[in-house]
Amino acid sequence: MIDFKTDSFQPGLSVDCVIFGFHNNELKVLLLKMKNLDFWALPGGFVGKDHGVDEEANRVLESRTGLTDIFLRQFYLFGNVGRTSTEHLDSLEAQGLISSDNVSWFRKRFITVGYYALVEYSKVKQPTVDDISERCDWCSINELPEMMHDHLDILKKAHETLKKELNYQPIGINLLPQEFTMPELQALYETILEKPLDRRNFRRKMLGYEILINTDKRRTGVAHKSPNLYKFDVKKYQKAIQGGLSQSW
Amino acid sequence: MIDFKTDSFQPGLSVDCVIFGFHNNELKVLLLKMKNLDFWALPGGFVGKDHGVDEEANRVLESRTGLTDIFLRQFYLFGNVGRTSTEHLDSLEAQGLISSDNVSWFRKRFITVGYYALVEYSKVKQPTVDDISERCDWCSINELPEMMHDHLDILKKAHETLKKELNYQPIGINLLPQEFTMPELQALYETILEKPLDRRNFRRKMLGYEILINTDKRRTGVAHKSPNLYKFDVKKYQKAIQGGLSQSW
Repeated sequence: MIDFKTDSFQPGLSVDCVIFGFHNNELKVLLLKMKNLDFWALPGGFVGKDHGVDEEANRVLESRTGLTDIFLRQFYLFGNVGRTSTEHLDSLEAQGLISSDNVSWFRKRFITVGYYALVEYSKVKQPTVDDISERCDWCSINELPEMMHDHLDILKKAHETLKKELNYQPIGINLLPQEFTMPELQALYETILEKPLDRRNFRRKMLGYEILINTDKRRTGVAHKSPNLYKFDVKKYQKAIQGGLSQSW
Repeated sequence: MIDFKTDSFQPGLSVDCVIFGFHNNELKVLLLKMKNLDFWALPGGFVGKDHGVDEEANRVLESRTGLTDIFLRQFYLFGNVGRTSTEHLDSLEAQGLISSDNVSWFRKRFITVGYYALVEYSKVKQPTVDDISERCDWCSINELPEMMHDHLDILKKAHETLKKELNYQPIGINLLPQEFTMPELQALYETILEKPLDRRNFRRKMLGYEILINTDKRRTGVAHKSPNLYKFDVKKYQKAIQGGLSQSW
């Protein structure tokens, strides 16, 4: 059950985190199933009056995944009137998941700040449920369950943003092994973009970003035609995170 | 003076608009000078309980510029504790710009949602002041006056975002004449990016975006070596606004 002193928190304000997980060329998202109910929610929380909004989002990410030092990016504020579902709130109350003292707080208008992160999900030991959920699972983004409020819209907008940001931000550190082949890197992009990419164009564009080091090694124990292993030039990669990729404006 | 029924508004929530103006290869920003005070503010407002956050930002843009149908983009929520300046609030109160009924409202913690727009500023007839400002001017982004609260940070973040978004969004409609030369388009990019660009690379990249139509005309009344005139392919331009530029992922 949720039961807290609502006056320590900013009224009408929440954060919701879209935590994407990548592993074996699959993209998933971390969702919580509400206790005894058939809908799922993004991990989220409220903003303490003495806490920054970004800070609270990081706390949510850490409390569900145990992961720290994960790049969590704010991407949108969802501010439409009527974005929370009274039907879903009715169900949460009927199940006794919201204390009677907190009911009026939840019934007020809420805006929510969306954040997203991308993690290697096999590195998350056991995602952790919160006070009103019975499961916390990695769900395939192609087979999503019914979701609470406007959480499906939030999730879609996060994915759209991630795709766009590939145009000026590098990706891959912490998601791929330290040394990887060009086809492995391409598979990461194809999974996120949900479309096949031309092999030659991908290679040309990626080398143009100037964030890769060719190790001149090949993976041992495989056929002699196996592709070269690359690694990220961490300094240039970090520079690109700050200032954009070298082929961007 | 500001004097309104605070209980019709979402507490602790404001919107601030960074309205960039482009004209003759200059980039400016629309700022309001507070009455009898030496600091300036971004045009902003509060969010009525029955109004969407995006809707309120559009209202702010229209009320200051008279412009409608301008693309206004939400870019960040500023949510740190202590982002408003008690010193600035003291000054506003001392000048009688905030009614005594509204003082406690303004003293609470505020988060603000940042929006930006880019307009051809010679088309804005006369920017309009609000209740607590004495001037509303286009200020050069290289010579900014002292600004209220964290408005300088908001402005900088908006400019940074605009630069990044050039990597996957077209720009120029409503900012350039209907037919324009490649050097004129390049000057627009150079002004926003605040750096010179290589002429050949710019041309190659821009043609690669497949949003330009070569009219095969040259501007009349100028030397025979004057460059070709281009115009935007409006359909492809709109498609790129939705789905990204053709060279993006």
